[in-house]
Amino acid sequence: MPEGINAVEMSKSQREVSVAEFFEKNKHLLGYENPQKSLLTVVREAVDNALDACEEARILPDVFVEIKKIDEKGERFKLIVEDNGPGIVKANIPKVFGKLLYGSKFHRLRQSRGQQGIGISGAVLYAQLTTGKPTKIYSRIGDKKTHIYELHIDTTKNDPEIVSENTVSGEGHGVRIEMDVKGKYVKGKQSIFEYLRETAIMNPYSKIIFIDPEGEKTHFERVINKLPKEPKEIKPHPAGIELGILLRMLKNTSTRNLNGFLMTEFCKIGSTTANEICMSANIDSKLSPKTITRDEADKLLTAMQTVKIQNPPTDCLSPLGEKALEEGLKKELDPEYVVSVTRSPSVYSGRPFQIEVGIAYGGKIDPQGAASILRFANRVPLLYEQSACAITKSIIQTEWKRYGMQQSGESIPIGPLAFTVNFLSVWVPFTSEGKEAIASYPEVIKEVKLALQEAGRKLGLYLSAKNREKMKAERASIFKRYIPRLAEALADITGEKIEGIEKHFEKLLNEKGLEAIQNGEVENEEENKTKGKGKDEKKEHKKSKKDDDE
Amino acid sequence: MPEGINAVEMSKSQREVSVAEFFEKNKHLLGYENPQKSLLTVVREAVDNALDACEEARILPDVFVEIKKIDEKGERFKLIVEDNGPGIVKANIPKVFGKLLYGSKFHRLRQSRGQQGIGISGAVLYAQLTTGKPTKIYSRIGDKKTHIYELHIDTTKNDPEIVSENTVSGEGHGVRIEMDVKGKYVKGKQSIFEYLRETAIMNPYSKIIFIDPEGEKTHFERVINKLPKEPKEIKPHPAGIELGILLRMLKNTSTRNLNGFLMTEFCKIGSTTANEICMSANIDSKLSPKTITRDEADKLLTAMQTVKIQNPPTDCLSPLGEKALEEGLKKELDPEYVVSVTRSPSVYSGRPFQIEVGIAYGGKIDPQGAASILRFANRVPLLYEQSACAITKSIIQTEWKRYGMQQSGESIPIGPLAFTVNFLSVWVPFTSEGKEAIASYPEVIKEVKLALQEAGRKLGLYLSAKNREKMKAERASIFKRYIPRLAEALADITGEKIEGIEKHFEKLLNEKGLEAIQNGEVENEEENKTKGKGKDEKKEHKKSKKDDDE
Repeated sequence: MPEGINAVEMSKSQREVSVAEFFEKNKHLLGYENPQKSLLTVVREAVDNALDACEEARILPDVFVEIKKIDEKGERFKLIVEDNGPGIVKANIPKVFGKLLYGSKFHRLRQSRGQQGIGISGAVLYAQLTTGKPTKIYSRIGDKKTHIYELHIDTTKNDPEIVSENTVSGEGHGVRIEMDVKGKYVKGKQSIFEYLRETAIMNPYSKIIFIDPEGEKTHFERVINKLPKEPKEIKPHPAGIELGILLRMLKNTSTRNLNGFLMTEFCKIGSTTANEICMSANIDSKLSPKTITRDEADKLLTAMQTVKIQNPPTDCLSPLGEKALEEGLKKELDPEYVVSVTRSPSVYSGRPFQIEVGIAYGGKIDPQGAASILRFANRVPLLYEQSACAITKSIIQTEWKRYGMQQSGESIPIGPLAFTVNFLSVWVPFTSEGKEAIASYPEVIKEVKLALQEAGRKLGLYLSAKNREKMKAERASIFKRYIPRLAEALADITGEKIEGIEKHFEKLLNEKGLEAIQNGEVENEEENKTKGKGKDEKKEHKKSKKDDDE
Repeated sequence: MPEGINAVEMSKSQREVSVAEFFEKNKHLLGYENPQKSLLTVVREAVDNALDACEEARILPDVFVEIKKIDEKGERFKLIVEDNGPGIVKANIPKVFGKLLYGSKFHRLRQSRGQQGIGISGAVLYAQLTTGKPTKIYSRIGDKKTHIYELHIDTTKNDPEIVSENTVSGEGHGVRIEMDVKGKYVKGKQSIFEYLRETAIMNPYSKIIFIDPEGEKTHFERVINKLPKEPKEIKPHPAGIELGILLRMLKNTSTRNLNGFLMTEFCKIGSTTANEICMSANIDSKLSPKTITRDEADKLLTAMQTVKIQNPPTDCLSPLGEKALEEGLKKELDPEYVVSVTRSPSVYSGRPFQIEVGIAYGGKIDPQGAASILRFANRVPLLYEQSACAITKSIIQTEWKRYGMQQSGESIPIGPLAFTVNFLSVWVPFTSEGKEAIASYPEVIKEVKLALQEAGRKLGLYLSAKNREKMKAERASIFKRYIPRLAEALADITGEKIEGIEKHFEKLLNEKGLEAIQNGEVENEEENKTKGKGKDEKKEHKKSKKDDDE
């Protein structure tokens, strides 16, 4: 071989890389791309965890968020997030915060904000990378103690490195986190304030207090005193399984025969379906799962995905509900009118999902320019990559003109509108690691559009009623302008005084409205005064039109 | 607390997730988003590894790639990639292929295709997930043996699971991989063929043989018999360091004082600079690095990034070079003309990088529509996310009209053009995990544009020369059409025969060209025959124009 190094020399530098080292070097994969987004990501990880923990313990969440400037340049911040959740037992605190890929949510099929077991430890990693400071955690689990840890992550081992630990007395339950991070605090569309405001809209059973770096305090109040129903864990559905996963399940199962395996490890497979699958795959249903070969498993999978199986159960999902969503929109946006729709659950790739839509109209919503779009996945606001998201695509593909809104071609409708779409699933199909946009599965687009259309119809009814009122008022105002001339003409005919007739018309218009006058409803009462040719003609014309309609 | 589960119950389900489980569930993070891209990713990981290994061992690469259909539906393929690299020692084979985050490239600052130690094991994971089949590896390191492994990844442990191992005799050296994967084979812009073709352009010292699923064989021949110079490993530069990294370096160093630490662990810090840094940070340079506190380290880092330090060394980079790039373009695109530019290295965030540009023009390049853009990072073709890439942005922001090309506003120029841009660095700033687009650092955009402008000027010279020739030919052809009338007039004046004069002019035009005739260069010789009024006037006009120019 030539002068380069050979395989033996090369082998000496080959070694393991810890997942913490990997994400330290690739922190953009976890949302730490730039100082502005990084600060938001840290807040989001902590708040999402707080809400998940509260809901799992069936506690109405009280969340406190504070961001303090800790240097003159405004490049470093202390973040404090405190909740009233169940707390974390002392023994698990170090790993929950000091080890990447650790948690309870990864292996579980049920709706929750966190999915990976990588969010909050990723934030701890980012804090120590950028400021060198350990994260401080206070945890109370209701045993009258507060456990306090300060910890780092040992990146070469991906294990917690405890700086200090201490236990003091403490009432109640909950977790408080303090971390120092590099960041940039901004206002506007992709800000922490906006993230919290949208969180408050979609989680109106939560109370959130926020103190910004200038010391300004905002209360996002609780307006619903009931948590959404608790989501249940489900088993995997055959439609969403890859061969490699099936092989592993066959190997690890404790069931004794194939029939039992299918019925126990998957949802919606009963004994009839299990037998049908085995027959279709031409495999004996009495065989032990551990003896199934790769080729047999391959046939089994084809059969599982061919034989008709019911959709997965949907109690793994926990929609907010129409009333609560409307309350959330009302309290934060102060609109003139709101509508909402919660669709029935649907399925993509064997995974249940559900769409909730709310539209807020008018009031304090900015009437200028395009409507605002508030996107959520499992009730978490998505602030980046709006145009890449299935939700946005569904909105622009809906014909809003039908419902009385302004829209030119396939674009976001214009006017004082806020669209709120919540996508719920046991596994959200994000387009990328940034977890900011939902992938455009046709099933998803279809469901979002149906929900939008339903909400659009509701809003359309309101808008057209409103429009009728407006037109009535306009017609009345036109009529008003003609009163003097009408009065003059009537005075000529009847010999009455103009002033009297004018006053009479004005009174009628104010009390009964223009339609009543046009329909002649008021004529009996006032017969003598207002009998005139024109009026009668009008009445007849109206009547004949009515006949045509019938 | 309410009816939900409490912290103790919750703690029972908290557990570790292996990095293999994580990437199995999040395979899109590694490029396995859809069957088409997945098949390309598998090929790319194997070929990139083969080229890296050959170059490191200073071997001219011979790479064989074959893709076979293994089911009727065309949804599963066997991929075979074989190289003549140094091979992998027996003991390391299982981990290199059967463990994610394992390798020699992660901790090293030097240009290479692979960066993470996650590529080829990610492909093994994808293969087993989608077809259940183990990956088969043959390795020869020049000891007359072939080591053969079949292996899976045990995802719960992220460790290799060996299905079979065997050693037989075998000459030479190299690695052969065989894996069965789910995929979709396509042709066109984002195809495996295109990836190999572009690889052949930017790696013209490699020979690549490809057999596609229809059995069609393509040879991408070697046209350069010399490898680019070997890149050297460098130490980190202070400009690219985060506080957390500095703290870890201070803790792990074997140096005994701060001065020595700075000089040993970083590039471009000599004793004068080291002292200057310590003075600026107001820390005693004799202190042991291990005693430095976080606050001191913070000051030290500020000083390191304030004190003027030379740019990092650039021998960690290995450009292909202008001549080789031109050869690569010629052999694969068969153009009429090529130009190329290799810029001097530059720096972003403390990391050296270098730009190479080649432009191929005319010949077999499609003259219709926009130019094609061939983007590379460390000589690896980037086939996705063209519009998000700093390379594309630099191309559209360059004024190509200046160089005689067609372009409307800020868009890709139009015509028979292929732009080739290679970005070289020890750490490529990709915009996302997909490793498909380079982030738009201002330093990067600036360098790419300068390289493009330089190449544009070279091509512009060729195009304007070509244009002059074309215009000359057009003028000559116009002159030719007037020869009969000119001959007639001259015949009248001189009394000579028309045919003779015509022939004479044609001969002159063919032998000396129109300019010579216009400039009167041929007149002495032919004085008697062609003296005419019009001619003299023309000559004078030409001269006076010349004077104006001077």
